[in-house]
Amino acid sequence: MKTYSEIMAHQRETEALAEIAGRLGWDQETMMPHGAGEQRAEEMAAMEKVLHARRCDPALGDALEALRETDLDAVGKANVAAIRRAYDRAVRVPGDLSATLARETSRAQGVWARARAEEDSAAFLPALEKIVALKREEGAALTDGQQDGGDPYDALLADYERGATGAGIASLFDAMRPRLVALRAAILEQPAPEPISGSFDEDAQMRLSQEIASTFGYDMTRGRIDRAVHPFSSGSGADVRITTRTAADDPFGSIYSTIHEVGHAAYEQGIDPIHALTPLGHGVSMGVHESQSRIYENQIGRSRAFSQWLFGRMSAHFGAAPAADADRFYAMVNRVSDSFIRTESDEVQYNLHVMLRFDLERAMMSGDLSVHDLEGAWNDRFAADFGYVVDRPSNGMLQDVHWSVGLFGYFPTYTLGNVYAGCLHKAMREDLGGLDTALALGDTAPATDWLRDKVQRHGGVYEPADTIARACGFTPGPEPLLDYLETKFSDLYALH
Amino acid sequence: MKTYSEIMAHQRETEALAEIAGRLGWDQETMMPHGAGEQRAEEMAAMEKVLHARRCDPALGDALEALRETDLDAVGKANVAAIRRAYDRAVRVPGDLSATLARETSRAQGVWARARAEEDSAAFLPALEKIVALKREEGAALTDGQQDGGDPYDALLADYERGATGAGIASLFDAMRPRLVALRAAILEQPAPEPISGSFDEDAQMRLSQEIASTFGYDMTRGRIDRAVHPFSSGSGADVRITTRTAADDPFGSIYSTIHEVGHAAYEQGIDPIHALTPLGHGVSMGVHESQSRIYENQIGRSRAFSQWLFGRMSAHFGAAPAADADRFYAMVNRVSDSFIRTESDEVQYNLHVMLRFDLERAMMSGDLSVHDLEGAWNDRFAADFGYVVDRPSNGMLQDVHWSVGLFGYFPTYTLGNVYAGCLHKAMREDLGGLDTALALGDTAPATDWLRDKVQRHGGVYEPADTIARACGFTPGPEPLLDYLETKFSDLYALH
Repeated sequence: MKTYSEIMAHQRETEALAEIAGRLGWDQETMMPHGAGEQRAEEMAAMEKVLHARRCDPALGDALEALRETDLDAVGKANVAAIRRAYDRAVRVPGDLSATLARETSRAQGVWARARAEEDSAAFLPALEKIVALKREEGAALTDGQQDGGDPYDALLADYERGATGAGIASLFDAMRPRLVALRAAILEQPAPEPISGSFDEDAQMRLSQEIASTFGYDMTRGRIDRAVHPFSSGSGADVRITTRTAADDPFGSIYSTIHEVGHAAYEQGIDPIHALTPLGHGVSMGVHESQSRIYENQIGRSRAFSQWLFGRMSAHFGAAPAADADRFYAMVNRVSDSFIRTESDEVQYNLHVMLRFDLERAMMSGDLSVHDLEGAWNDRFAADFGYVVDRPSNGMLQDVHWSVGLFGYFPTYTLGNVYAGCLHKAMREDLGGLDTALALGDTAPATDWLRDKVQRHGGVYEPADTIARACGFTPGPEPLLDYLETKFSDLYALH
Repeated sequence: MKTYSEIMAHQRETEALAEIAGRLGWDQETMMPHGAGEQRAEEMAAMEKVLHARRCDPALGDALEALRETDLDAVGKANVAAIRRAYDRAVRVPGDLSATLARETSRAQGVWARARAEEDSAAFLPALEKIVALKREEGAALTDGQQDGGDPYDALLADYERGATGAGIASLFDAMRPRLVALRAAILEQPAPEPISGSFDEDAQMRLSQEIASTFGYDMTRGRIDRAVHPFSSGSGADVRITTRTAADDPFGSIYSTIHEVGHAAYEQGIDPIHALTPLGHGVSMGVHESQSRIYENQIGRSRAFSQWLFGRMSAHFGAAPAADADRFYAMVNRVSDSFIRTESDEVQYNLHVMLRFDLERAMMSGDLSVHDLEGAWNDRFAADFGYVVDRPSNGMLQDVHWSVGLFGYFPTYTLGNVYAGCLHKAMREDLGGLDTALALGDTAPATDWLRDKVQRHGGVYEPADTIARACGFTPGPEPLLDYLETKFSDLYALH
């Protein structure tokens, strides 16, 4: 291995193997028989060992060191930079640790699912304790010997959002929090709109999900939709799968999970195919990824115009109108109310759920918070932030799959995604006229085409924040999101 | 890597990776989006390259050479022998060839499926030509430099049936053929029983398949049932999945595909867990594998006693009796009639379908038959053997997936499996009294327990033919199968 093209041929195989590992994760959450958990953990560990060895292959290291980059174009340089980053990361983390993490997180997901179903947080603690210890070890390995000492949480965060730091996120959140808290308080003083009620056939929910996915341009010849406890999207290039969830009493669960995951999938499907099976052939960061899923879900999917179309489609699929009229339906899909669950939260309170998790996981990673004190810390913080008490673990610390998968540093990217979505929405509205006319007819193409052109097709070519800045024409910050939320919800709740 | 336990630790990871590759194959046939075929081919090639490199890792070769086996027990010796075989095979086949085969067979399956759906055999030929060339190259590599010259077809056959040779199979088939042909002729002189008729809800077929699978002891906590165009079973240990097919006018398609695949799955699930993720943790050969699937499907599933139970269950699941009475139903599930399709064939004609494929694939591997002459050769031979003319490619050379997957040498193991099933059935009947009383109640446990104890639990510990000989207490041969067929069908068709 010596030339750029030899390095890229090696990388192409690594990318293909990483796709396989990702699909195994999809399989585990959607198809795997319950009794296969232990064997699957061994499989994941073996696969991770292969991937790790390839990423820090000494022959790759030598080739990277000897490579003259002067002849490379911007895409070539970005590819090499990404391979170097993966190499530098893999060299720091012992292969055994990396394989053990794959094994234990695969196992812990099953433990979490059972503990959650049985409302038994104590049953999850031994697994979580192991994951936290392994992730702290990984964070330490990643920062060991760094000149600035290096914050282990920052090192983990970098896996999801290159260029972000815990301190930077904390200061962003501090800046956002007062306006969100004030908006929430003002809303909750007003009478709440009626919630959705009735029973909605779950097969019809899946059919509606299929229709909505098509409406948003999700290419089913390169994807599929299944059910999962915790919806997610998975895969790149020609095989990008999404999942959703259904519950007879909550059709919005399937509808908005589907739109959210379609946003992720549209990003992966929208990347220029020249980047397929290269490091640039994925969404550039989770923050940018969430910007796509959240703008699809909220700024588009929960807009007044789109909700008019959805009102008609729900009436057609379920045989009865979901609300007395389209205006009341619009209020319904944007209803702000007491809720324990992040994924079911309205746009205003959502970020408060994220901030809670960010502070707790940072404390776990620094060692300030023991997993044995997590439930108490969660419940105390929740009561302080939301004003009511967590009633059971599935409504508290057991609600999210993330920590069982070892995703420490992932949660803040949701709010970063909201911030980016706010910026993109502002720029998109300035660029496009007649957007609401199209959305009211269920025509999302003007919006999704704009996002594909401005963001999605670039994949990993630019740095995360730069990807958004180039799309918007301004440096991203929280104001557009906060302005949008205040305008939208002041109107909805007659706050003027 | 030096000691036995270090070799086994390496092998354990190889086995885990091979399970992953197998599951990718399952995914391709059941879940994969249509447009992902090219990417999947790249993934399969990358995975095969990893597996190949591990199997012929020089460090493994050194360890195998230095290993003192005197301290090992029988299981240890069998494990080492299996690892040595895989090493010797992998050393002979260039890694590029092995990866190319994985890529091209993954691709060719999609080409085959489209060609079959469109009745366009010409569309399949370029892909088949490539596969045949690659398999001939593989056969040549495997026999290159062997003292006896070595027959490439035998080398490929050994992947599925260690110890078998093309010449040995040919002579077995020659010995069986006259009695099968005579039995078929005598049957076809008699009036045919009525076929099944009506329309059978396909979801109800799937529910019945689930019930039948449970009845046969298939452990759904370590497996699952999905639909596939060409039913198959897949995986080992704790994750053994089966597929079936449904068609409204042919409930026997789903019922007997399910029982057949459950036989394969029962073998994998029945192996002693101490062999999990070792080379002994799989069925020892395809012939022995088919002995399990065929005895489940035929000697048990198409017995008079079991068909009585099935008659009742079909009546319950479909809301009407499938025949006027249980006797006529028994004749129906054993109906011998004109049929183009191997998988739908009765027990008598089935082996004639296999013999046709065996001769054609041997000729393709030797170079005596070009793929461009395959369709003509198939149709001529079919007309000669069966007395009527193939009407379309999906009823002829496009009916089976095997050659697109590169499975040359696989077909004869079906008849070998029938021969082994005949031997096992004879021994089982001698060991067990009251079997039919149990089967008539849908209780397959006496039969399946006997098979688990005598065959399945041993996995790959003994050589294939030895596995059957130990189970039966006699050297396997075709007579028990032929005796069974003549007795059963003489009774069914009043041939006395």
